[in-house]
Amino acid sequence: MKNIFIIGCGLLGSSLLRRIKKKKIAKKIYIYEKSKSNISKIKKLKLPGTIVNKLQDGVVKSDLIILCTPMSEYKNLILKMNKFLSPKNIITDVGSSKLETSKIIKKFLKKGIFWISSHPITGSEVSGPEYGKQDLFKNKWCVLIKEKKTNKKHFIFLNKFWKKIGSKVVSMTAVKHDKIFSITSHLPHLIAYNLVKSAQDFEKKQNFDLIKFSAGGLRDFSRIAASNEIMWRDIFFNNSQNMRVAIDLFIKNLNSFKNDIHSKNNRSILKKLVQTKKVRTKIVKLKQDIDKPDFGRV
Amino acid sequence: MKNIFIIGCGLLGSSLLRRIKKKKIAKKIYIYEKSKSNISKIKKLKLPGTIVNKLQDGVVKSDLIILCTPMSEYKNLILKMNKFLSPKNIITDVGSSKLETSKIIKKFLKKGIFWISSHPITGSEVSGPEYGKQDLFKNKWCVLIKEKKTNKKHFIFLNKFWKKIGSKVVSMTAVKHDKIFSITSHLPHLIAYNLVKSAQDFEKKQNFDLIKFSAGGLRDFSRIAASNEIMWRDIFFNNSQNMRVAIDLFIKNLNSFKNDIHSKNNRSILKKLVQTKKVRTKIVKLKQDIDKPDFGRV
Repeated sequence: MKNIFIIGCGLLGSSLLRRIKKKKIAKKIYIYEKSKSNISKIKKLKLPGTIVNKLQDGVVKSDLIILCTPMSEYKNLILKMNKFLSPKNIITDVGSSKLETSKIIKKFLKKGIFWISSHPITGSEVSGPEYGKQDLFKNKWCVLIKEKKTNKKHFIFLNKFWKKIGSKVVSMTAVKHDKIFSITSHLPHLIAYNLVKSAQDFEKKQNFDLIKFSAGGLRDFSRIAASNEIMWRDIFFNNSQNMRVAIDLFIKNLNSFKNDIHSKNNRSILKKLVQTKKVRTKIVKLKQDIDKPDFGRV
Repeated sequence: MKNIFIIGCGLLGSSLLRRIKKKKIAKKIYIYEKSKSNISKIKKLKLPGTIVNKLQDGVVKSDLIILCTPMSEYKNLILKMNKFLSPKNIITDVGSSKLETSKIIKKFLKKGIFWISSHPITGSEVSGPEYGKQDLFKNKWCVLIKEKKTNKKHFIFLNKFWKKIGSKVVSMTAVKHDKIFSITSHLPHLIAYNLVKSAQDFEKKQNFDLIKFSAGGLRDFSRIAASNEIMWRDIFFNNSQNMRVAIDLFIKNLNSFKNDIHSKNNRSILKKLVQTKKVRTKIVKLKQDIDKPDFGRV
């Protein structure tokens, strides 16, 4: 491995930095970050790598380019980078939804340039380079998007790269990715936001002090609902079709629960409550469980 | 304090036992448990207290009676205990909803006998005496239900009792209790069950292996959805009116999110996503947060 260019140095970007440095994965690391506050944090924390002021400076010097910005920045970044890209550049990103971004990449990326999307299944409800950790990716899944036209050489390279970072790699199409994560990650996060929103509405209406009693469940949803709003807006918007299907399914099931409760349908509700336990058993069996719930993050 | 009678020795009952023994809160402890499997666990674990075979044996020997069974058992237990109860008995329970049970108590409890409901805000997704812990109640809220007719002497007694157990005590009416907990606890749990149910339906339809990628959020909901089904059926049924209101509010808000996503309404979705962060800040400020999410439990 030669030089790596990290574009966007928040939680994920700075975690990659730390890991790349620790495992000596790159000869040189370049960083592009547009937030002044983040830049001063990076300097203060003495994070490894050279901060470049212009995108082109990082692009021309690097073999691997990793976008770690919100997905809504991709289009602008592509347009700015295009002139300086060569087919030798291996380009990836760490965005949490893939269908819409792959359309943007297809539409705006210069012809002949390859981009293979990655999605490391990790993160936190806190944002910024000060929260990054070198082991953020350790033993976590990283999904590599593989389509018919995917450049094999670049794919093999990225596969090895993520393994060096500590991830377990799995590949699938963007279509499959976005369907799976609409249910395992995007919907759960939307639900958490929605629950907290509902509690706020309720509190306003009733003038009760709910938060004091939030330990009964609400508290742990609030942790998720504190996640970065730009990142999540981008995810929800970029996976809007699958989100609609997931929300509709969720509401259908919730109405069924509501009917069970209203009609005190013992048999029907117990069937549901018992059935859901099986998922838990499966998760524990697959060793996907951890001591400390962390809402895995995207 | 003299003698205490614990009816139902699962997670909460056995935790009370352990705490009462450790803090020497009672002279004698009596236990009534109808599950043979739990009885053999209690014996094997050498938990403190004397197991009685008949309810009346515990009732006549005890000053304080605590029901730690599912709420659907209350009616039967009351009918069986009635004959042996005296106005001196201090009776409480640890059920998670109060309106319906207070109706049952009013309807079936012998006249002249006092019952003041308690709700310690604690628990776990695991059930049974083997999971009980003496510090389960430590620094957790315990709600004592106080109405106009509440016996003051018994109320003062129970207040002191829960403080000895380690809880922080707060009092409110059953009406207020059930409204608050419909939002802070009962709805969050229903939502978790519903999310896991939706994931199961999705998996069946798509034939995708979702669980492998459950770390993105779903996993931590599954933890809650593994909770005791009898207990939760009872809670949902007993707080059905408030649950209906809470579910309707939740669906209204979810549809609003769905519209934002569908129409890519940047301003509206960001407003929601930012607003929900405030709850988190409030929880942290109120020192209601913990290192490790535990879904507080009811």
